[in-house]
Amino acid sequence: MEKAKFAIVGLGVMGQNLALNIANNGYPVAVFNRTESVTRQFVAGLPADQGIIGTYSYVELADSLEKPRRIMLMVKAGPAVDAVIAALKPHLEPGDILIDGGNSYFEDTERRTVELEKEGFLFIGTGVSGGEEGALHGPSIMPGGSVDAWAALKDMFTAAAAKAYDGEPCVDYIGPRGAGHYVKTVHNGIEYAIMQMIAEVYDLLNRGLGLSTMELSELFKEWDAGELASYLVEITYKIFEKVDPETGKPLVDLIVDEAQQKGTGKWTSQNAFDLGAPTHTINAAVTSRIISGMKSQRTVAQALIDGPSEKFSGDREAMIAAIKNALYAGIILAYAQGFGLLHVASEEYDYDLDMQMIAKIWRAGCIIRADLLDDIMKAFDRDPGLVNLLLDDDFREAVVSRQGDLRHVIINGIKLGIPVYALSSALAYFDAYRTERLPANLIQAQRDYFGAHTYRRLDKEGSFHTDW
Amino acid sequence: MEKAKFAIVGLGVMGQNLALNIANNGYPVAVFNRTESVTRQFVAGLPADQGIIGTYSYVELADSLEKPRRIMLMVKAGPAVDAVIAALKPHLEPGDILIDGGNSYFEDTERRTVELEKEGFLFIGTGVSGGEEGALHGPSIMPGGSVDAWAALKDMFTAAAAKAYDGEPCVDYIGPRGAGHYVKTVHNGIEYAIMQMIAEVYDLLNRGLGLSTMELSELFKEWDAGELASYLVEITYKIFEKVDPETGKPLVDLIVDEAQQKGTGKWTSQNAFDLGAPTHTINAAVTSRIISGMKSQRTVAQALIDGPSEKFSGDREAMIAAIKNALYAGIILAYAQGFGLLHVASEEYDYDLDMQMIAKIWRAGCIIRADLLDDIMKAFDRDPGLVNLLLDDDFREAVVSRQGDLRHVIINGIKLGIPVYALSSALAYFDAYRTERLPANLIQAQRDYFGAHTYRRLDKEGSFHTDW
Repeated sequence: MEKAKFAIVGLGVMGQNLALNIANNGYPVAVFNRTESVTRQFVAGLPADQGIIGTYSYVELADSLEKPRRIMLMVKAGPAVDAVIAALKPHLEPGDILIDGGNSYFEDTERRTVELEKEGFLFIGTGVSGGEEGALHGPSIMPGGSVDAWAALKDMFTAAAAKAYDGEPCVDYIGPRGAGHYVKTVHNGIEYAIMQMIAEVYDLLNRGLGLSTMELSELFKEWDAGELASYLVEITYKIFEKVDPETGKPLVDLIVDEAQQKGTGKWTSQNAFDLGAPTHTINAAVTSRIISGMKSQRTVAQALIDGPSEKFSGDREAMIAAIKNALYAGIILAYAQGFGLLHVASEEYDYDLDMQMIAKIWRAGCIIRADLLDDIMKAFDRDPGLVNLLLDDDFREAVVSRQGDLRHVIINGIKLGIPVYALSSALAYFDAYRTERLPANLIQAQRDYFGAHTYRRLDKEGSFHTDW
Repeated sequence: MEKAKFAIVGLGVMGQNLALNIANNGYPVAVFNRTESVTRQFVAGLPADQGIIGTYSYVELADSLEKPRRIMLMVKAGPAVDAVIAALKPHLEPGDILIDGGNSYFEDTERRTVELEKEGFLFIGTGVSGGEEGALHGPSIMPGGSVDAWAALKDMFTAAAAKAYDGEPCVDYIGPRGAGHYVKTVHNGIEYAIMQMIAEVYDLLNRGLGLSTMELSELFKEWDAGELASYLVEITYKIFEKVDPETGKPLVDLIVDEAQQKGTGKWTSQNAFDLGAPTHTINAAVTSRIISGMKSQRTVAQALIDGPSEKFSGDREAMIAAIKNALYAGIILAYAQGFGLLHVASEEYDYDLDMQMIAKIWRAGCIIRADLLDDIMKAFDRDPGLVNLLLDDDFREAVVSRQGDLRHVIINGIKLGIPVYALSSALAYFDAYRTERLPANLIQAQRDYFGAHTYRRLDKEGSFHTDW
């Protein structure tokens, strides 16, 4: 029997679809799932010539594979990854390649790299973005780790990955050790920021301006045809047009307003705090998800705490046009923060990240795919060492020319009492970044006053302490 | 020779002053410092009857103490604490008490508690706030850990602690294990938030309204005589009145505007993300310190990126009055977030925190001491189970009546292009908290769309997935 060229362990939706994707590209795939019935059911539903081979033990899995073996784990991030690796290892040989395709914490990937390389295995930790559909038809893939393993995976991953409009595949080697999972984490942090800004815009348009769900659907559809064209804007208009078959109401109106999270956004913010990178909008998005989860307290509070009326009384068309610009500026600022964080992390962890390549492979397949990413790729092409998107002429102009609208929209949110935390965080980032002299001199004076922490002076070198 | 009743290891300014404080209260204190000359110099500068005994080895230190020994470490948080504990232990006996008085990470304190109790020692991890002056004349002390150790320290710590206006000491037993250091961390998180809001107000008054440093000093002095009365407002006006003797300019104007940090604010935000507690303003303060540190990029950016003019053209007196109210509301909201976080942490870590007591011991001695804390204490006295300060009638009214000014001030900051991130974060917290229906339903729909993460419905129980 022909040996499989690839294996997938873990047949959740992502694992199943990735197996199909790779098999569809002509690479026979062995699959394994802890619960045998899942594997049987999956394989039973496929045509005989699909090129997917069900296996029911790690021995069988290992035997079914061409050497060096290429085995990808699509299991839940965390202890499950370590457990599967431990169970697999006795059946593997030095030179075999293990790939972790889950949303693992990058420091776990760093640790696993050391552990596995010590035993002669090659390890890749890779981000895979695109959800179910992406996994099946072409995700954006962000592999980091062993260069030799990448060489043995490149053809297969390139075939399976999404292709941008220019035919370029959305996969490339990101960097050593945890670089792939790190970049995927930041991708998700940016995703959180954009989703929260879209939610705030929705809130302004709906509660503030009184747009119906159908009007919202039309508006986002129109936006998706212009500079805001992106997967997240596209699914937003499709969500708004979905009617609940049972009640006949827009489905979105029936969904509980408590946003959940699986950790990647939080990790981005926590890591940015550790590295000292400013990620205002990502932090605001994570915090907004948290407070959304306090529905029972919010219900009590709404009955007790008065705020302004939520009805907008100005020129609706003008406000809608301003909101569109504000959202676009906010999204650029979220990318500026995300790439700024990658810049700092690249130095800190010696990842040697290629920003142009990262923008390039985010152009299709992944959740944050957007026309804008093509422009970002070009900005890094013009200046590979660009430390912040706002220092690029085009992006600076894009935000500067829209800052009036961004301010106007936030001011209206504040007047209406509608929270616009992510949007105002984007503006706070912009205003702080473009300000040479911030009031942190007072903070340094206070720290020296109460804690003798010393301060530096503008007019001479050294470290000073004052007996205030 | 009379045995000492207490020992301090680590003679930085805080250690020296705490030793003097405790000795001044009639408890002879043995002191030790890794660098012998520091100890010699410290002791040589004291009167013979000061009650401070210099020791020059851990053996000598241990021998000089009454049993059970009570030894407080005032060394840098982190590995130094473990190193001193390891060096001390061979000279100690079961029942001896070790106290870590540094700004240790609470999870380190949790670990050390387990390690030390296993060997029969009693361990206290305590927050000590008040800076140099507080350490000498009376800090706020937040001890957590062994109840038996607390019993053996209570008289001494009570004598050394600050006393509030009503004579009550600013120390009490906080809770088990890392509870003391946890509460101190959140104290510092609140401190970061208040400092950043004061800095933003300073920026608005100075760059926006054109107040001179002397005018600022007078204004903050006036504020310190009213409802804003607090240590941080007091030192702010004193900082503004300080003139640099060399240049004759206000000293604050000569200080580099890069705020540094030692970790406690960051830990508060990172931990709040882990626990799922919304700490908008604390997060914004930490993030603002981070972006303040990017002075060289900001200098480049200012020359390139246009913004609005920074000059305010409205009614200055009215704006100053609004700013005062906005700051007061912002500070209440920062406390609401801090106590909200303590509420969540108390459950998560089984700390069984007494919020009324925490407010009580923050009323004097510590950096965030303020008249307001007396009101907070009373709010928790009225309702010990209060989950959020905003649900207390008085505090709700205090913020509701000032929200117009808070909105007005933020709007003006936004129009002027002056970053008001912490203030706008406080408002975003307020507006989200008092909103029963947030737009997170859209986020849940998006998550279900691209990741099949499912959602809950308002109209029926269960977990749902839609083929969008």
